Amino acid sequence: MSDSSPTIALDAMGGDHGPHVVIAAALKCLDDYPQLVLTLVGDEPVLLKQLKKASAVTSERLRIHHASEKVAMDESPAKALRNKKDSSMRVAINQVKEGAADACVSAGNTGALMATARFVLKMIPGIDRPAIIALMPSIRGHTYVLDMGANIDSSAEHLLQFAVMGNELVRAVDKIDSPTIGLLNVGEEEIKGNEQVKQAAKLIADSHLNFVGFVEGNHISTGNTDLIVTDGFVGNISLKTTEGVAQMIVQGLKDSFRANWYSKLAGLIAMPCLKAFKQRFDPRQYNGATLIGLRGIVVKSHGGADSESFANAIRMALEEIEYNIPDKIGQRVASALSERDPA
Amino acid sequence: MSDSSPTIALDAMGGDHGPHVVIAAALKCLDDYPQLVLTLVGDEPVLLKQLKKASAVTSERLRIHHASEKVAMDESPAKALRNKKDSSMRVAINQVKEGAADACVSAGNTGALMATARFVLKMIPGIDRPAIIALMPSIRGHTYVLDMGANIDSSAEHLLQFAVMGNELVRAVDKIDSPTIGLLNVGEEEIKGNEQVKQAAKLIADSHLNFVGFVEGNHISTGNTDLIVTDGFVGNISLKTTEGVAQMIVQGLKDSFRANWYSKLAGLIAMPCLKAFKQRFDPRQYNGATLIGLRGIVVKSHGGADSESFANAIRMALEEIEYNIPDKIGQRVASALSERDPA
Repeated sequence: MSDSSPTIALDAMGGDHGPHVVIAAALKCLDDYPQLVLTLVGDEPVLLKQLKKASAVTSERLRIHHASEKVAMDESPAKALRNKKDSSMRVAINQVKEGAADACVSAGNTGALMATARFVLKMIPGIDRPAIIALMPSIRGHTYVLDMGANIDSSAEHLLQFAVMGNELVRAVDKIDSPTIGLLNVGEEEIKGNEQVKQAAKLIADSHLNFVGFVEGNHISTGNTDLIVTDGFVGNISLKTTEGVAQMIVQGLKDSFRANWYSKLAGLIAMPCLKAFKQRFDPRQYNGATLIGLRGIVVKSHGGADSESFANAIRMALEEIEYNIPDKIGQRVASALSERDPA
Repeated sequence: MSDSSPTIALDAMGGDHGPHVVIAAALKCLDDYPQLVLTLVGDEPVLLKQLKKASAVTSERLRIHHASEKVAMDESPAKALRNKKDSSMRVAINQVKEGAADACVSAGNTGALMATARFVLKMIPGIDRPAIIALMPSIRGHTYVLDMGANIDSSAEHLLQFAVMGNELVRAVDKIDSPTIGLLNVGEEEIKGNEQVKQAAKLIADSHLNFVGFVEGNHISTGNTDLIVTDGFVGNISLKTTEGVAQMIVQGLKDSFRANWYSKLAGLIAMPCLKAFKQRFDPRQYNGATLIGLRGIVVKSHGGADSESFANAIRMALEEIEYNIPDKIGQRVASALSERDPA
């Protein structure tokens, strides 16, 4: 693996829809990125059959790596870790560990992916736990938010680590020298919130980061902060709330244009505008959440991703390979630790 | 005060916009509800001037009760409680305490309203803390959610109390015999979540309530649960996230119809549909969150409410008077306590 040919291992059996989505996304990305090498990890006969269906064949740039097992979407992470040593997910992560791939992408069971990635790849020294960082749409473009649900209880120190990690990712991917960072809270005033966020605010304010203070939930979609930090419980509920509201509003809009013959006609005329609107907030373009803090790049795709959506997760992995995010985080944490405890 | 003439004290000085919004809402509600009596609490000369501007006068059904002070929107709750004994907010709550009003409505500072209402009215026996319950729009109509931010740390026992209180409110206002109740979590499986929600799930499952288990954030807008319980930190962030996403989507829709001459024309043609859509999700119709658990009815209006919006908060108070919610909760809690510790 060299800089000129980034290699990504794809868990071809993960997700709700199975290999054909992963294969379609892979073929698309191979077309778009002439240097890219992809390894489909999964049941070889199944994958060969699906490739044939897609009128594709294996090549130097599209390999198959056999894995005999598959982690179910509802399987307990502990069981998957213990019993599925030859799962497509585990073998894809192993590829990263062994240096056969620069990153892996999976649409499988989040908990199992977290547990397995952490076990196989280990944490970056100085980082206690992985976190999930994702892009959320906003009026001005997008906002990065972490943790999206990797951790259900986080200390103030963990929130600081999330901020440090997120900062490096945003710096690299969005090319912002010093991203603004907000801490999610129930109000913007310093006196607001629980002990966890109050302490975390002090830690982040005392760090090298460009901390703007507390931000509220509406800030994710309407504010201008580059990165918002929260614990995984709140982050996950905020993310799912966003998905629900978007679904409800789109449904409401459809209903309004289906109410009667006039509205149906108006809907036809308004179609180009509605399409532009839909495209702007298409959740598929935000697919691809990164498990950050590990000594390797692991990107989680939404379980229900279609091929367009899965392709975005592959693109996210590619960007992280380009900027070598785990190394950037490792360097930053090492320098922060040495400042804290000067030898 | 009798059943035939419900009386509501309005904090006429609270909110971002001041008395003219409260007065316009009051006049509207007096027209709509011929039995209703309203008391405007605030600076009498200011209120008389505003009434005159609105071509209205005081009457048996529209009284003024003078209060010399006003709680600022950013004032600390502790300071407001200690120093503003003649604030419009405090005096309006006193009206409820003294039986001169059946409920009060304020668009003022949430923290100060909570602290003052709790201090003046006291809690229903068996309930430790007030919670804020609000209506959220959903595909099938609406969902009640509590706590929306009254408490930043809640124990499992508190979450059970929230469920008991919310259940009585939904039963009365929505006339559902046994509302379905979900507990907000990061997944629907029993193994998901932190200790607080796992314990709360056990307590609620063991109670008389119609518990459906854990629900995720998207369930608020797209699910079919009548009532969703969460702690105030998560509830507030979920609520604010919803506001932000809605604002972003509406902005995106406007942008799509303003892009060029064709889209502007299409927007004109689609206007009736867009209006119907807007009306369906108009946040004004969801204004009016109840401070539940107190020995009296206190409804919080959004600080930025306009008169239509504030009128909805008055309507919410009226419904709660009709069904005597605090008494219903008191009876239910008393019977639950006696079941738990039989004499």
